[in-house]
Amino acid sequence: MAGFGLGVVFSKMNSLSASDHASVVSVNLFVALLCACIVVGHLLEESRWINESITALAIGICTGVVILLSSGGKNSHLLVFSEDLFFIYLLPPIIFNAGFQVKKKQFFRNFLTITLFGAVGTLISFSIISLGAMNIFKKMNIGSLEIGDFLAIGAIFSATDSVCTLQVLNQDETPLLYSLVFGEGVVNDATSVVLFNAVRNFDLSHIDAVTALQLIGNFIYLFISSTLLGVFAGLLSAFIIKKLYFGRHSTDREVAIMILMAYLSYMLSELLDLSAILTVFFCGIVMSHYTWHNVTESSRVTTKHTFATLSFIAEIFIFLYVGMDALDIEKWRYVSDSPGTSIGVSSILLGLILVGRAAFVFPLSFLSNLTKKSTENKIELKQQVTIWWAGLMRGAVSMALAYNQFTRGGHTQLRGNAIMITSTITVVLFSTVVFGLLTKPLVNHLLPSRTHLSRMISSEPVTPNSFFVPLLTNGQDSEADLGSTILRPPSLRMILTAPSRSVHHYWRKFDNAFMRPVFGGRGFVPFVPGSPTEQDGSQWH
Amino acid sequence: MAGFGLGVVFSKMNSLSASDHASVVSVNLFVALLCACIVVGHLLEESRWINESITALAIGICTGVVILLSSGGKNSHLLVFSEDLFFIYLLPPIIFNAGFQVKKKQFFRNFLTITLFGAVGTLISFSIISLGAMNIFKKMNIGSLEIGDFLAIGAIFSATDSVCTLQVLNQDETPLLYSLVFGEGVVNDATSVVLFNAVRNFDLSHIDAVTALQLIGNFIYLFISSTLLGVFAGLLSAFIIKKLYFGRHSTDREVAIMILMAYLSYMLSELLDLSAILTVFFCGIVMSHYTWHNVTESSRVTTKHTFATLSFIAEIFIFLYVGMDALDIEKWRYVSDSPGTSIGVSSILLGLILVGRAAFVFPLSFLSNLTKKSTENKIELKQQVTIWWAGLMRGAVSMALAYNQFTRGGHTQLRGNAIMITSTITVVLFSTVVFGLLTKPLVNHLLPSRTHLSRMISSEPVTPNSFFVPLLTNGQDSEADLGSTILRPPSLRMILTAPSRSVHHYWRKFDNAFMRPVFGGRGFVPFVPGSPTEQDGSQWH
Repeated sequence: MAGFGLGVVFSKMNSLSASDHASVVSVNLFVALLCACIVVGHLLEESRWINESITALAIGICTGVVILLSSGGKNSHLLVFSEDLFFIYLLPPIIFNAGFQVKKKQFFRNFLTITLFGAVGTLISFSIISLGAMNIFKKMNIGSLEIGDFLAIGAIFSATDSVCTLQVLNQDETPLLYSLVFGEGVVNDATSVVLFNAVRNFDLSHIDAVTALQLIGNFIYLFISSTLLGVFAGLLSAFIIKKLYFGRHSTDREVAIMILMAYLSYMLSELLDLSAILTVFFCGIVMSHYTWHNVTESSRVTTKHTFATLSFIAEIFIFLYVGMDALDIEKWRYVSDSPGTSIGVSSILLGLILVGRAAFVFPLSFLSNLTKKSTENKIELKQQVTIWWAGLMRGAVSMALAYNQFTRGGHTQLRGNAIMITSTITVVLFSTVVFGLLTKPLVNHLLPSRTHLSRMISSEPVTPNSFFVPLLTNGQDSEADLGSTILRPPSLRMILTAPSRSVHHYWRKFDNAFMRPVFGGRGFVPFVPGSPTEQDGSQWH
Repeated sequence: MAGFGLGVVFSKMNSLSASDHASVVSVNLFVALLCACIVVGHLLEESRWINESITALAIGICTGVVILLSSGGKNSHLLVFSEDLFFIYLLPPIIFNAGFQVKKKQFFRNFLTITLFGAVGTLISFSIISLGAMNIFKKMNIGSLEIGDFLAIGAIFSATDSVCTLQVLNQDETPLLYSLVFGEGVVNDATSVVLFNAVRNFDLSHIDAVTALQLIGNFIYLFISSTLLGVFAGLLSAFIIKKLYFGRHSTDREVAIMILMAYLSYMLSELLDLSAILTVFFCGIVMSHYTWHNVTESSRVTTKHTFATLSFIAEIFIFLYVGMDALDIEKWRYVSDSPGTSIGVSSILLGLILVGRAAFVFPLSFLSNLTKKSTENKIELKQQVTIWWAGLMRGAVSMALAYNQFTRGGHTQLRGNAIMITSTITVVLFSTVVFGLLTKPLVNHLLPSRTHLSRMISSEPVTPNSFFVPLLTNGQDSEADLGSTILRPPSLRMILTAPSRSVHHYWRKFDNAFMRPVFGGRGFVPFVPGSPTEQDGSQWH
């Protein structure tokens, strides 16, 4: 995943000698801290209240204090944050792994609900936070913020961080909730980034109906074309490996092809100004559905764990950095004159997040319940509260977007921007630690008897056919449907009420008749028990 | 393995926006070319004459032509080469993987011969090439080269590239030769880099006995301390995983710890100005002996193939780049006035390489044969010729060292330096392609009946004890011995003639009584068949 970095390093390091001592020291310290996070996180594993994110945050803050003291109060971090680093190194493995490890069966069974929450919900949340911030902050004395900044704030604080919650929710005990929260988290990340880019790319000084329509059209175009690119890259890798490697497998080549093709899809999407995050997510799904079944047993084990490990390291890296950067003195200097303002802004943002999420979870759950006949499949109120709570945490994506919007090269000079950065840090720290620690007791309180839910899932007949997971989004037609469902309630309603079994049925027929013979997949290669999605979908263990 | 890059990117990318279009295009093209190399290399696999290196070189040259034409003759490469990139991204996975996958049994059985060839032989080759270049080039009109440049030339052209040969030699048909060539290649790489750095760090204007002794002392110190650091890092990882993870394994954490600790050992060695290449090599050996046995079955498969894949990608990357850079117009411009000079210099260097290698392979083989009683264990003349030939190819290490010495940030302005760069490219291309293609017929001609050798190996009794591979270099005492044997023939002779069985015996006792109970390893965790070293030691398949 170091491709882009290489390019940058190649072109930028001309003046940099091999003995850049400070860089080597930083990297040593950072790698050592990553090791420490893993070891300490493991030791604290028994206590499920404290997760790896909080551990990394805490270690980051402690290190920040040490650096702050030893540097004489100059700075607290080893490295200057760059959103490029985040979007080009750290995010691709996390999102690709999410697609690769997602329980496709659960994901596609709840696909419409997940899309509703992830796309429509994020739009609602974005609107509420943007409007709220615009109205409230204009009355406060926090420097000059333009309309683009307020829309960016909406996008920044619409990006949930479901990683912490996933560590608390148990995939086997509450599979429906896990699937909803996980799926929503991924779609939500993609939606926020797409929104953020859409907002930045448009001239927002004259907002009228045409601009709004263009924005929406742009959004739909990005969604569809990014998804198609990811699906194409995944299918291409499946086809190459099936055609060329069949009969004389070579594990290293297979693994290399999968990694390189996945990264290529991400970079290609970036090159075409699409949403790379969506592309690589769907590339991951297609790769786990087709490509993964075409490779040797060794390659299956290797790819599954390699992708999970890369994602794991990237996540710890982000939290470690956020912890270190939280004490950065430069940003707090602007705020220290008026600590009340900063606390006020952070509190308002937290309030807006709470309201913005409530504003779509409960109505959309109601809408989703309308389409379901049996009471068992409906989302109960207690589950709705859990879903609401599980998406309140803000994490690395928010940080990266905030740095992108409000700093230039990790530094900021404007008072308004500095306040937004410190407020983002405060919101991320507070929500991760406080909300994160409260999630476990809340889940225990709201959902004490978990046997009900697990029975609901396990009571389904597990026939051999049920292995053939419906993959709704794989053809061009269903893609177009998906795109239009997001924004046109009438047709959405129609599809929601249509029996999803028939869609699954046709997809399965199509998959078996055309897709699998060409691209491989389970059933078209010797069966080996334990796929990455069935055996162990958790990305942390 | 992107740690250092992150540091650099963090600190250098402040002025770089996310939409650096040219970089994104370059990376896309480079990743796509890597995929093409893997696919084409796989298709050509049947013909063992053409290996992956030659494929990557050829694709690189073709791409270079296309870029040269489309850029209107300005340049032929996508990225400016940086020796930092090479030493910090690409070399660590290659060398670590070499240590991790090396057949320890064969390696340590022939340890003294390998060390003789790799360390003493490289020193001899270095001296001959340096002296030859000094005497011949001074009479030619090739610009101003100082004494440091000539010593650097010696180090640059002493670094063999055994990867190509390993693809031709078969590990099962000629295990002794494979082991000798592979082992020598690794020790030789390390020796060349250590020599190169030693030469650069010393004031060479006044060479006298004291400076020479200091040089030798520095060399020994680097060897011993680098090895110890690597062994320490490996043992620490084994200890952490054994103590903390026992009973509740987590694959991703184990894999992450192994990757991070290996990289940390490399960067720490770099920080302490030691030979990072030796450190990471011995870290790999210790990790495969202890750590690898302490992790879960999934982690074993994953680490084995992940390390091999990373190494594979890094090697292809290097050859692809060398191919592209071969056409770089800037360097050839200085040479185009006098094409005869460049051809002359390249031919002289090729001649010196041939002589320099012959000057140590045959005498040292004779010395090694003196210590062996049975004729079957001796290195026959035909085998000596094969060893001599197998080390004639020059590859990525030579390129990287040459760029380090003769360019500033990938560019060169001096005529003498430009001639050295183009000559290095010529030597690398010529030796890889011509010598590489001739190796297979030569091996077939010299060693037609391979049953003899394989019988020699397989006739040994394979008792369960023979799994307990002697690891000579693991304690401080044996380390000190190793260091002194390199340069003091009397004690070397004594150890060579002493029955190596007793050394193995004591090491095995020590390993079983003290090391394994503390650090784990085979026999102290549930036995699982197929270790990375026994099952498949080849790093290409």
